Formats: sequence, C-alpha cells, structure tokens
Amino acid sequence: MTYAPPSAEQAFALKISAGIEELAASERFAAASADMVEAIVEGIGQFAAGEFAPLSRVGDTQGARMIDGVVMLPAGYAEAYRAYVEQGWNAVSGPEHFGGQGLPFSLAACVLENLGTANMAFSLLPMLTVGAIEAIEKHGSDEQRAMYLAKLVSGEWPGTMNLTEPQAGSDVGALRTSATPILKGEHAGKYLIKGTKIFITWGEHELADNIVHLVLARTPGAPAGSRGISLFIVPRFHVGADGSLGAANDVKAVSLEHKLGIHASPTCVMSYGDHDQCVGELIGAENEGLKCMFTMMNSARINVGAQGVMVAEAALQHAVAYAQGRVQSARAGSPDKTPVAIIEHPDVRRMILRMRALTEGARALLYYTCGQVDRAALGDDAAKTRADLLVPLIKAWGTDAGCEVASLGVQIHGGMGFIEETGAAQHYRDARITPIYEGTNGIQAADLVTRKLGMENGGVLASLMAEIARDAGDEAGLAALARDCAAVGEWMRDSASLDDKLAGSVPFQTMCAVAVAGWQLLRQSRAAEAAGGNLARTKPVVARWLLDHLVPEAAGLKASATAGAALLYALDRESLAS
Amino acid sequence: MTYAPPSAEQAFALKISAGIEELAASERFAAASADMVEAIVEGIGQFAAGEFAPLSRVGDTQGARMIDGVVMLPAGYAEAYRAYVEQGWNAVSGPEHFGGQGLPFSLAACVLENLGTANMAFSLLPMLTVGAIEAIEKHGSDEQRAMYLAKLVSGEWPGTMNLTEPQAGSDVGALRTSATPILKGEHAGKYLIKGTKIFITWGEHELADNIVHLVLARTPGAPAGSRGISLFIVPRFHVGADGSLGAANDVKAVSLEHKLGIHASPTCVMSYGDHDQCVGELIGAENEGLKCMFTMMNSARINVGAQGVMVAEAALQHAVAYAQGRVQSARAGSPDKTPVAIIEHPDVRRMILRMRALTEGARALLYYTCGQVDRAALGDDAAKTRADLLVPLIKAWGTDAGCEVASLGVQIHGGMGFIEETGAAQHYRDARITPIYEGTNGIQAADLVTRKLGMENGGVLASLMAEIARDAGDEAGLAALARDCAAVGEWMRDSASLDDKLAGSVPFQTMCAVAVAGWQLLRQSRAAEAAGGNLARTKPVVARWLLDHLVPEAAGLKASATAGAALLYALDRESLAS
Repeated sequence: MTYAPPSAEQAFALKISAGIEELAASERFAAASADMVEAIVEGIGQFAAGEFAPLSRVGDTQGARMIDGVVMLPAGYAEAYRAYVEQGWNAVSGPEHFGGQGLPFSLAACVLENLGTANMAFSLLPMLTVGAIEAIEKHGSDEQRAMYLAKLVSGEWPGTMNLTEPQAGSDVGALRTSATPILKGEHAGKYLIKGTKIFITWGEHELADNIVHLVLARTPGAPAGSRGISLFIVPRFHVGADGSLGAANDVKAVSLEHKLGIHASPTCVMSYGDHDQCVGELIGAENEGLKCMFTMMNSARINVGAQGVMVAEAALQHAVAYAQGRVQSARAGSPDKTPVAIIEHPDVRRMILRMRALTEGARALLYYTCGQVDRAALGDDAAKTRADLLVPLIKAWGTDAGCEVASLGVQIHGGMGFIEETGAAQHYRDARITPIYEGTNGIQAADLVTRKLGMENGGVLASLMAEIARDAGDEAGLAALARDCAAVGEWMRDSASLDDKLAGSVPFQTMCAVAVAGWQLLRQSRAAEAAGGNLARTKPVVARWLLDHLVPEAAGLKASATAGAALLYALDRESLAS
Repeated sequence: MTYAPPSAEQAFALKISAGIEELAASERFAAASADMVEAIVEGIGQFAAGEFAPLSRVGDTQGARMIDGVVMLPAGYAEAYRAYVEQGWNAVSGPEHFGGQGLPFSLAACVLENLGTANMAFSLLPMLTVGAIEAIEKHGSDEQRAMYLAKLVSGEWPGTMNLTEPQAGSDVGALRTSATPILKGEHAGKYLIKGTKIFITWGEHELADNIVHLVLARTPGAPAGSRGISLFIVPRFHVGADGSLGAANDVKAVSLEHKLGIHASPTCVMSYGDHDQCVGELIGAENEGLKCMFTMMNSARINVGAQGVMVAEAALQHAVAYAQGRVQSARAGSPDKTPVAIIEHPDVRRMILRMRALTEGARALLYYTCGQVDRAALGDDAAKTRADLLVPLIKAWGTDAGCEVASLGVQIHGGMGFIEETGAAQHYRDARITPIYEGTNGIQAADLVTRKLGMENGGVLASLMAEIARDAGDEAGLAALARDCAAVGEWMRDSASLDDKLAGSVPFQTMCAVAVAGWQLLRQSRAAEAAGGNLARTKPVVARWLLDHLVPEAAGLKASATAGAALLYALDRESLAS
C-alpha cells in the first residue's frame, strides 16, 4: 500500500484549527513562517511516504523479534531511522539550545502524523522520545540537560517511558521497582535501580547507539502509593562526562510481547538490575516522579490521540482505493445493469463519508488542541486550561475514531478485508491499542469529569461550549449539542455524585469531543468556502456529513451521560457474570 | 479459557422469546417437551464446554494448515467432531425420515450457540452443513435425498457452500464456473464442473469420510447474470448407488487463506475440474440455483447473526472473569484507599452492563427470530413474513453487537487485552468476519429496505412496530423508538427514492433491531420478575440498561436514517479520496 500524504488537509488544519499564522506572529515561533510550514508539511509527507510506508507491511508480517537475546527489526528499519535523524525531522519542535528548531508543537504533530500514517508501529519510536525530551528539559539538572538533550532532540538516542509493572497498570502508584542511593564510588550520588517493567514500547533495539530510559521507581522509605514515586534516567549505555559512550548498564529486554498489532514496535519486558548494577540518576525532586510524568503526559496523550488520526487516514486511503477499483453489481435501479465500482453504491459512499468525517473531525480536534498547547507555551493561560480540557477529548475520541474507521475500512473490503494480505486488517489490529495505552479512554473520561471539569469551577468547559454554540450560527444541531454538553457538565458539577459522574463520563466525553470536532470542521468548511479551490468542494460535504450524522448520534448519548450509577451497582460482582 | 454454558439464559430465551412451549403444543414439534428441551440445552452446553472449548486456543494459534496438499487441523479436532456426530448433536433439527430428531430450529440454534461460543471457528463446520441439508431436502430428487441426507443429517458427511469467485462476491450473478452436461458413459445426465471458488469455509479437511459441496455454476447458454445460475451437488468422493464411497472426484483445495481470525476454520480456494473430470449433479431446476440458495439463506443468515451472540458471550465471560480478579486502584472517593477488583469501578461496570445488554439483547432477538421461523414451518404465514423481516436485523445487529462486545472485552483487559496470550484479542479478530460473510451488513440493510419493507406494502414492519409500541406500556422510550421505526419505514415506502432508502438503510436497520431486541428483553424481564429466582434479579437490570442506553442511542440514528442520498453523491468518486 502506498501512502499519499494529505498535505493540503494538514496545512489547512494547521492554518484554521491550530492557527499557525497567529503563532508565527509571536517572537517565540517566528521561525514558523508560511514557507517553513509548507516545507515541513510537504517534506515530511514525502519522507514518510518514501522511507516509512514501504516498511509497514514487513513490519507487520515479520515484526520485531528477539534473536539470541537481541531485539531485531526487519531489514530497512535501521536505515530509515538513520535517515529520519540525519534529515533533522526529530528536531522540529525541540529546544533550539540543544539543536532543535523550536517550532510549534503543532508542526511536530504534523511530522508525527505523517510518520504514523505511513507506519504506525515505527512512529512510536520518535513519539516516545518526545516525552524524554520534555521530562529532562523541564525537570533535569543543567548537567543532565547537557548530557542527554542534544542526543534526544536529534533522535540519535531515543527515549523510553517505564511506568507499568505487572501489578501496576492504570494504578501506577502500585509500582515496586526500587532505587537505592549509591553512597560511594564512581556512581556516588546516583541510584541502583532494580525491578521489572512491562509493556515498554521500543524498550530495546539496535537502531541507535544508546537508549535513554526514563524509569519510575521508589526510594527507600518513600511514602506508599503515588506520592512515593521518583523519576530516574537510566541510559542503556553509560555516558561519560565528555558524552562518550561507556559500558552497558545493567538493564535489558528479557522478552517481547506477542501482540494483536503494531508488530514492528518491540514491546519489551525490561529487567533493571539483574546483577544489582543498574545505575540511574534522579531527575527532579525525590517523590515527585509522578508530577514529572504529568508534565509529559499532555503531549503523550495528544500524540496517542493523533494515532487515531494516523490509522484512520491510512485505513481511509486503503479503502477508497479498493472501492474505486472493485467492480461489483450495478447501481440499484440502474436500467442497463452495468456493474460499477462499489464506490458508486450508496452504502459504500455512506461508509466512506463516515470515515472521512471521523478522520477529518479528529484531525480538526487534534490541531485545535495542538494550537492551544502552543498558545499556552506563549503564556496564554486561558489556552493552557482549554488545552488541559481538550487532552482527554482528543486522546479518547481520536482513538475511538481510529478504531471505527479501521473497522469500516475492513467492511468496505468485504471478504478481502478479512484476508491479511490485503492490509486492511492490519489497521484494524494496530488501532486497537490506542484506546488502551497512555491512560485508557475510561481513565481519560475520569480525568475529564473530575479534574478537568473542576477547573475554574466548570468555567473552562462552559466557556468552550458557549463559544461553540455562538459560532454554530444557524447550525442548530451543533449549538444544541454544545448546550447539552454545558448542561451535563453543570449537572455533574452541581448535582451528581462522584459515582454518577464517572458512570456518565465516557458518553459525556464523546459528546464533548464531537461538539469540538464538529465546530472545528465547520470552521474549516467556512474558511474553505471563502478561500475557494479544491477544499472548497470537499470540506463542506465532509463537515455537513459530520453535522448531520455524528452530531445527532452524540446528542443521543445525553441519556447515558446523565443516567447515574445506581443501575451499575444494582448487581453484586458475582451476579455480573451471566 | 473455560466456557460456562449460559444454560439458564438460553432456556429462558427459548421459553419467552422463541415460545418453545407453544411450539411443543403442535403435533410437528411435540417431541420438544420440557424434558427434551432441558436435556438438549444442558447436554450441548456440557458437550461444547468439554469437547469444543479446549480446542479454541490451539485452533487460533496453530490454525488450519495445508501440509503437502492436505488440509490439517490441530490435534483433537477430528476426535471432537467424531464425538459430536456420534452423540447425535448434528441431527437435532434434521428431518426424522433421514435420522434427524425433527426438533424446532430454535433448539438447533441453541446447539450451534453453544458450539460457537466454545469455539467459533469449529462451529462453522456444522453450521455450513445445515445449508446443504436444507437445499437437498427442499430441492433434491428422491435419489439425491436418499443418497445424501442421512449422512448430512448425522454429520458424517459435512456440507459446504460454493458461491464466491474472485470477480463474484456480493455480486454472485457474476460467477463463471461452468457446468457442462455429460452425454454418455457412467455419469451421463450429470455435469462436468469447472472453475475456481474462493472463501470456501471448511472446503476441505480430513475430519469426515466425505464432503458434500454445493456449487453454483452456469450451464451452456444460460442467461447472463443471476438468472443463469444452477446449483450442483459435487461430492468430494463419488458415491455408489449403494451409498459406498468411490474414487476421489476432481475437486480439491489448492490453498488456504491467511485470515484475521477464525484460524481453525480452513477457508479454501477450491479448484473444480482441474483434470476436466469433476462430476456434479444438478439439484433443482436448471437456472434456478439462486432460488435454491435463497431457501437456505434465511437460516444461514440467522446462524451468522447467532455468531454475534456466540462471540459476545465468549468475550463477556472472559472479561468478567478478568475484571473480577484484577485488582487495581481504590474506588474513586474511597476513604481507605484500598485497591479493589476493577469490576468495582463505575466505568468497568458500565462496559460490562453494555456487553450484557448487547449480548442478551442479541440473544433475545435471535430466539425470537428462530421462534418465528418455527411457527412459519407450522404454516403460520404471518410468522413467515415476520421471520423474513427479522432475518436482516439479527444478521446485522447480532454481528455488530458481537464486534462491539469483543472490543469492549479487549478494553476491559487493558494492556493485557492487546497481548495475544490473554485470548481477548482472539474474540476481537474472530468476530470481525461476521458483519461481512453471508451477505455484508450493508447487503442486509438493502434487503431490509427494498424487499422486506415492501412485504404487504409495509404492513409487516408496521404491525411488528405497532405490537412493540403497544407492549412497551410505560416504557416510553421504547414505544417512541418503535413509532420512529414505523414512521421511517413509511417515509421510505411512500416518499424516499431508492437511493434515499439505501442511504439510510444501515442506521434504519440498527433502529429496528434495537426496538425488537429491547422489546424481547423487556418481555423476558417481565417474565423473570413474575417467575422469581436468579433471573428475576439480573434480567431486569440488563433490560433496564438496554432501554436506558441503547434505545436512546438508536433513537439518535433517526436523522441518519432519513438524511437521504444527496450528500453521498455531492462529490465525484475521485474527490472521495482525500
């Protein structure tokens, strides 16, 4: 399957929903000129299509494998990653002081979107590195920044995130990996790390000279639960004061998971300190590891939401190409009974428009969220809280949309969709992890109705929904949905018990996400109509479909959002088994 | 994963939704006494749990393989199938004259449900045989019935269905396999079959002495399209007049598909007449093959809809067991912060109740449909047309429900759900074929809004929905949904163009299915409350959840059902690619 970068779509979303031109008007993002934006959007599209996409299928069929204890990727991955680093794509939004271009997060999102549509499993490698950069930039010491940031920003040393342990998944506070201060010797002042981490994405591989593991662990006597967790930097190979690589650290991938999808992404069980010689450095203050993790959680969750867009775009391109080429049956009611490409049949068109509405709606929500993150970086506090509110929406609805679009892509392929060689099934398998990792979509919804809804006593949600209702103009359905979201939010804040809020949190989250996505796609549609050109033909149709179909469906969730928790606890846990 | 047969649920659905006691009051189904029903429900549950379920995982991991041209199943499959045949489970609803028990279709559905929940891929073998029995019973000559039916009814010789060719999927009329009359010699009066069929489920294997292929093909000079198709019996091994097995026929599986799921079901590319010696017998009249296929299509579609129930039940059992055992985090707001099993968290309970509402709702719709089929067999014409109307609903909504429940099952498992060893992902993969085969769910919807809606000028739908609205009593949401379904049906019949109908067909189909499923689960709930016992506690909760959540969602589809086709054709096919 070839990948045709949706550069025009992305450039338009950057312009209208991220507001990239306004960002470029600031001193901080002055480099994001129109020429630069175009060069990046076009350039990364070509790079991803040329280097990452051709490796997607072999990545799925062969996958990452552990051979004699070494994590191996299929042929071509190392070369493609090297090209990615050498061409500077990893450095788009990194800090300029460490070799980055300092461009907006929105542009880095566009880079990732292209990589991930071309090859979702592969794109996780740079995606995880983003978190390590943020953590060290914000919480590291000057020495740590000097030692690691330039290599992370360039991508020469990718980063990993080590949170999960067998007994500590969503409940990260239950983790047990220990960090014991080293009192003397060459590593005095550092810590001995010991423990097992699971589900570590790209935890080990031979694509880079070093890997910078960020690891959550407990120091001796630390408080129980999440308040006793500290964050550590654990390099795969020790790094000398001059930046030179030393001996291997005592950390190692002991096995790879056999997963439903993203087979090219090595998901490792990592063992730290098998020989009691794994050395890590504390980053940030002791017992403030979770706080450090939270600073990188926003971008990580946005980037996972973006994976929904990635897999949706890939599935959409795949399905449309098939539907244009597959001839089967005449149009219903056709007098001459000439068979037509299935894209001419009404229900296939319905599926394709649904796929497009979900894909473009999720992309609109994604870039709107990114734009708010960039505004927050410029000191806009309202944008900061709005971004915080949007994070669970894009993470959850973006990934739900990705799964649904991938499933529709299989459906359009008919029986061929169930055959692995076709490739449609890969999207369906790859997509399924996205509603789970980086906080399940249920965790996102809990975050929305507890922490996010409480911001400014509900004012952050209320002002967003009021803006949508106002902007909706004569789009009565969208305005009504926004008012419904505001009303449900108010009920949750003022009247609902904690259980009632949580019981309705997932449908409420969907309602809010559709309202914002519909609003942003409507804004794009109006702008496209004003601007003319190709998007002036397509965008109003896709936006119309979203407003006419997805918005009424979302409105139908209000009953679920406000149903409360009583029925959920009407049966005891044994009776919940049939 | 062990399988705990939901015998009480099934017995209750048989009683309330299929009305098995009323069926047993007829002479034809007098054998379906309460004792017999109980013996079958309990017995097949134990058989499936003991013989089929233990083979499900190895069937997925090893799958069917072609080794030196021979289709091989994992160890244990042959023995389990033999036990299934020997214990008479295949013969439950077969004609008594040929060794069947002549029991209602509803009971045969319960047999299949148990087999398929235990091992979906394996259950396709008996499921396909049902079609061959029906075709030969209804359209075969006395000689053909005598030669094949007893063996098919017992299951000693399983049957297959051969429709699809590379260029003929949904458009079965495009098939090219040829059937040339044999004018002289031992096979005079029969036909030489030549062509390639794809996607042939259990097309070849060594689990039985013979296989009875039913094959669609064209005779010389037959009209083009679907009016020139005839149906043929093509045994894998020739059968002598005395029933003895002869030499191999010239038919053979040439390869197996590599599929997303149901790995234990060998999906074969079948080659007929490689050596121009493949002999088949015409069944029914020449050029009436499609009519013959239609007679078996209803039960086949119902049985595929049942697969939605099967995979949903399996995923539900899997997920509830995990949620009961996995301890993670305290309840939100809990003062003592004691971690609890995740089944105690509100959103996990929401997912489980949703899974149960979908599973039990689909089962209620399934057995209601089966009961109408059985009434039709007793000569009840109103039941016949109602069954015809229900077939697309159970096929489409049952399979959609199966896919959604399987996906929720993965979600409840969190990261573990994405790991293949857990087994949750197998349900997700297995389920995905069901909305595709036996007529895609889009084809079902087209059948609903064209042929089925037209029955009695819309009266079949109208009377069903009127009955639901009446029965709903004070369940205003259900009554309103039923009235919406009737109104949309009326609009489609009186005002909508063919394209408009088709454009809204899939959401309309979902609305109708939820109305019927909600109605039947409500009936079960009321009956359970009246009867007391365990179901009196659980059924009202599950029914309440369906009525409070799925019914409003379905109502939210009305806008989509009536939106019309104009927007679908606003873009030309090239512009549909982004």
